[in-house]
Amino acid sequence: MRAVGVPTQLKAYAERVNARLADLLPPENKPPAPLHAAMRYSCLAPGKRLRPALAMAAAEASGGDPATVLDAACAIEMVHCFSLIHDDLPALDDDDLRRGMPTCHVKFGEAVAILAGDALFALAFDTLGHLPIPADRALRAVRLLTGATGSDGLVAGETTDILSEGTPVDAETLERIHALKTGALIAASCEIGVVVSGGADEDASRLREYGAAIGLAFQIADDVLNETSTPEQLGKAAGSDRARQKATYPALYGLDRSREAAREAADRGIALLEGLPHPELLRDLARFSVERLT
Amino acid sequence: MRAVGVPTQLKAYAERVNARLADLLPPENKPPAPLHAAMRYSCLAPGKRLRPALAMAAAEASGGDPATVLDAACAIEMVHCFSLIHDDLPALDDDDLRRGMPTCHVKFGEAVAILAGDALFALAFDTLGHLPIPADRALRAVRLLTGATGSDGLVAGETTDILSEGTPVDAETLERIHALKTGALIAASCEIGVVVSGGADEDASRLREYGAAIGLAFQIADDVLNETSTPEQLGKAAGSDRARQKATYPALYGLDRSREAAREAADRGIALLEGLPHPELLRDLARFSVERLT
Repeated sequence: MRAVGVPTQLKAYAERVNARLADLLPPENKPPAPLHAAMRYSCLAPGKRLRPALAMAAAEASGGDPATVLDAACAIEMVHCFSLIHDDLPALDDDDLRRGMPTCHVKFGEAVAILAGDALFALAFDTLGHLPIPADRALRAVRLLTGATGSDGLVAGETTDILSEGTPVDAETLERIHALKTGALIAASCEIGVVVSGGADEDASRLREYGAAIGLAFQIADDVLNETSTPEQLGKAAGSDRARQKATYPALYGLDRSREAAREAADRGIALLEGLPHPELLRDLARFSVERLT
Repeated sequence: MRAVGVPTQLKAYAERVNARLADLLPPENKPPAPLHAAMRYSCLAPGKRLRPALAMAAAEASGGDPATVLDAACAIEMVHCFSLIHDDLPALDDDDLRRGMPTCHVKFGEAVAILAGDALFALAFDTLGHLPIPADRALRAVRLLTGATGSDGLVAGETTDILSEGTPVDAETLERIHALKTGALIAASCEIGVVVSGGADEDASRLREYGAAIGLAFQIADDVLNETSTPEQLGKAAGSDRARQKATYPALYGLDRSREAAREAADRGIALLEGLPHPELLRDLARFSVERLT
């Protein structure tokens, strides 16, 4: 299979998300300036914008208009950035480098980093609260985002991950960490894309499942890349997972079986797209998730 | 003026809030158990439940049914607890004692405390997302809570407070810190009470103003009590504000003028209740805010 780059349409969506995020985030000079500078620094740092692009691509796949999902997609990215800022803190993963740049607490200090994460989280829900769509759909998006984030989602995953550092992790716990820490928000991104653009409930459920599958594919691939890449390629410290005895697929199954598991998850995702009006971009994204590994 | 205790009806509301919070919070033994234990520990710790009680009392004052506001009131308390957990962290106020008990990070470690705060924040919006009221009203409550919390509210106030530690603060900055850090959420609590119970927009605006006034009264009174009480009376370290050169009313104006300012704010709040169907409890609360000082 030939190696592919980031799909062109994903890049186009990412650029629209970046432009809109720059509008939605508070201006850098608004007091208290360090808070707003930190929010912009972390949320506008270079990134694939995978989650917001998935929300827009899911709208497209189910026959909706991706443009109607732009603000909700930005809200999802804000939640993702909030979680990265807090995960990187000294008390948690203690990472100094993120997306090739000093992490938020290294640049702005721990206090401002904690508060900038909190403020991004609030801004995400504020953005959903102001969506120009019927209130019942916007409120459903709120529920989907809280469900993916809180103590049944991302935060539970991060807690389980932190608590299992330095101790051997079984396959079941590893699955749970990945499903909660990465899968839940990616699955919700796809579902939110369908819901906000007014798509059918059946498509929302199906694309949620697709998201869970390719979320796993991306996470396993990231784990593999963490072991096999240089810091320059990653934009952060390489081999850091192993150094702190993190629960990862490669640690449990080795590199070859991990690559295989990522491919299987991507294939499960692709199979779920059968029969949708415009599955092309989501199919490309599923392929992209694992072709980085070849 | 005779000194009064906590109004009886406030205590009754607080008990209903405590019982409902115990239901809404995840069970302590649900994995990851330390996360859920920390959420419950901080959110069920003894407290006046001033903000949720104000939401219920505002519903009552404007002729609504306080029972319809119970879940929204719990969401407000979750946000308050989230902010206390994060404010107490070593990187911020570094407090070891809260409500007479070890702070969340002292009891559960910093990582779990940060994540428990995040999860409480998510649960607050999840709770609003599930309110059994028309979606447009629930979504308005979401907007009110995000507006009071994020980088235009509580988080901005905490940031300004942290950034001005150790440097002289002028009256304008002090007003802004108090308005953002305490006033915004208390004002929103009152407004949410009216909105969620289906009250009139005019009452919502008026009770928002009432909330801002008595929020200031409570904050000044707390600053005064921080200087004049024993740790046993406070449930936390006394004189801690002065020790770390915090911006406070007593530091800027002295104790006497601070007491006077608190009374004036409470009086402004009471004047705003004129003409409402059931202003009694809110009037008692305004008096209670400052009579603790006598």
